[in-house]
Amino acid sequence: MWNTRYVLDSRPIGLATEANFRREEVSLREPGEGEVLVRVHYISVDPAMRGWMNEGTTYVPGVELGAVMRAFAAGEIIDSRHPNWKVGQMVTGLLGVQTYAMINGEYLTEVDINSAPLSWYLGVLGMPGLTAYFGLLDKGNPKPGETVLVSGAAGMVGSLVGQIARIKGCRVAGIAGGDDKCAFLKNELKWDVVINYKSTSDLPAALKEHLPDGINIFFDNVGGNILDAALTNLGRGCRIIICGAISQYNNKTIQGPSNYMKIITARGTLTGIIVLDYFDKAAEALNDLSGWLREGKIIYKEHIIPSIDQFPFALNLLFTGGNIGKLLLRIPIE
Amino acid sequence: MWNTRYVLDSRPIGLATEANFRREEVSLREPGEGEVLVRVHYISVDPAMRGWMNEGTTYVPGVELGAVMRAFAAGEIIDSRHPNWKVGQMVTGLLGVQTYAMINGEYLTEVDINSAPLSWYLGVLGMPGLTAYFGLLDKGNPKPGETVLVSGAAGMVGSLVGQIARIKGCRVAGIAGGDDKCAFLKNELKWDVVINYKSTSDLPAALKEHLPDGINIFFDNVGGNILDAALTNLGRGCRIIICGAISQYNNKTIQGPSNYMKIITARGTLTGIIVLDYFDKAAEALNDLSGWLREGKIIYKEHIIPSIDQFPFALNLLFTGGNIGKLLLRIPIE
Repeated sequence: MWNTRYVLDSRPIGLATEANFRREEVSLREPGEGEVLVRVHYISVDPAMRGWMNEGTTYVPGVELGAVMRAFAAGEIIDSRHPNWKVGQMVTGLLGVQTYAMINGEYLTEVDINSAPLSWYLGVLGMPGLTAYFGLLDKGNPKPGETVLVSGAAGMVGSLVGQIARIKGCRVAGIAGGDDKCAFLKNELKWDVVINYKSTSDLPAALKEHLPDGINIFFDNVGGNILDAALTNLGRGCRIIICGAISQYNNKTIQGPSNYMKIITARGTLTGIIVLDYFDKAAEALNDLSGWLREGKIIYKEHIIPSIDQFPFALNLLFTGGNIGKLLLRIPIE
Repeated sequence: MWNTRYVLDSRPIGLATEANFRREEVSLREPGEGEVLVRVHYISVDPAMRGWMNEGTTYVPGVELGAVMRAFAAGEIIDSRHPNWKVGQMVTGLLGVQTYAMINGEYLTEVDINSAPLSWYLGVLGMPGLTAYFGLLDKGNPKPGETVLVSGAAGMVGSLVGQIARIKGCRVAGIAGGDDKCAFLKNELKWDVVINYKSTSDLPAALKEHLPDGINIFFDNVGGNILDAALTNLGRGCRIIICGAISQYNNKTIQGPSNYMKIITARGTLTGIIVLDYFDKAAEALNDLSGWLREGKIIYKEHIIPSIDQFPFALNLLFTGGNIGKLLLRIPIE
């Protein structure tokens, strides 16, 4: 049996390219004591992956050159020498960008594909779902009637944050790039205000026009000019939750928010969400999210690319704004 | 009787100059019903004044062109048509940059010059004192043993923040510009770590060297490169309290903190202090501050310039780093 894998070959400057990875076909060995072999069905493609390609440590260490590119993935156990796991169980974990993963059984999570499709455990019922849930509810503490603004609003995390905010009785506004994304937010998700930043020449003016009472919670996935625009229109006591800065991940020098003093005059706070901190509370969140999905209160969109060979292309889709909803690679069954 | 006053004549670009003000000598009228006439003894010169010279509203509206320049000041009532006030009482208030102030009696605060010198009510026992007290204690919530870093450390607010932090059992580090300021912090205030940013080529490296366990509270009066340097060395759960950005007030475009994502990975928060929000709790703070002054736990330094005609020069001293401690104009008794 052969494993197809993407290894980090060089560190990108700006956008990652195909040349930063080495595609390898290697033969699979037998599992050692405590190891499990997983056949990967879905690989999650996340903005954070670009950061993992850099040298040094942020909230986790960067991927080492020569190592399989780090990725969350989901699949089926096809061999096991770990007492807790047996063939046929479905699992998620940091399986990497590869078609088969040999992994210590300690680092796997079992998922139930009778209650939801396998791929959902990489999205709405996985890390991104928990990020949206705890970022909004724990860090943001939204109150009914408050105005929540989300950037990167058509992305996996952004679209979920806005939907949870609506469930909690908030007025929801989203900033996204392009007509398709805005139509999705407006027509399918029924958000109150949707702003296409690509066709808006003066974003601060647009925010002031559409949100005249100011923003109570700003959930930011984008950074850069969009963060600065939001800071011009804060309501008193605003909570700014930084989840990501996708506009900046490919830049050598990060553009800091020049309007940060507006946080002070608004008596606001800026903080962030690191989902790793919430693993012990995950069950509560997954229970809520599953319920909302069942009741149709959350619409969940996936953007599935059916080949591991599209991995470098897929990664850049996130940064060029090409996806709506959760971006995944699917490994076809041979 | 003649009043000498400084009126805002034009809005500065960059540093304020003498040409932005008009010095006027005008005759004083009699107080109207409810008004009080105050002979000004001390005028407070504060970094916030530069912001008040700009158009538009931040936490307060800007000074209008043609109006007396806004300033906190202290003096003696020499005429009164307000039932609560009589001649001889000593007061503080927003009296403006002028030698006499005609003001509605509602907007004055009485001070007791038997318990402290009049000028102290513009500093350690006034707005700057309350700013330091509530900024550090309410927003920062310092715990014994924590490391508190202060920028603009030799200024009025900065030097007080560090001293209160020491009283609360914290390890205190300060960043200041120049040998005199650093000697004051090191030798007189006995701070644990003092860094002269003007003679430090790599401030992030210096912070890492002197504060290897990271910063628990960063109290920032400066912004710009100093804020960005501090963000590289945050401890887990760090509180960043923005009080000011004196390095940026004269700039057309504010330099935002490009390292703001470090706040997220440190699980930190950024917030600010607006002293107006704490007036109802002022008594408690003034009681503590007075006690610490009496017990010699706080050393309080003033930099007094003995003429109203030095006002434009004095204002710029704040931005060129020329003062240690509280900067004041004293109006000589004629």
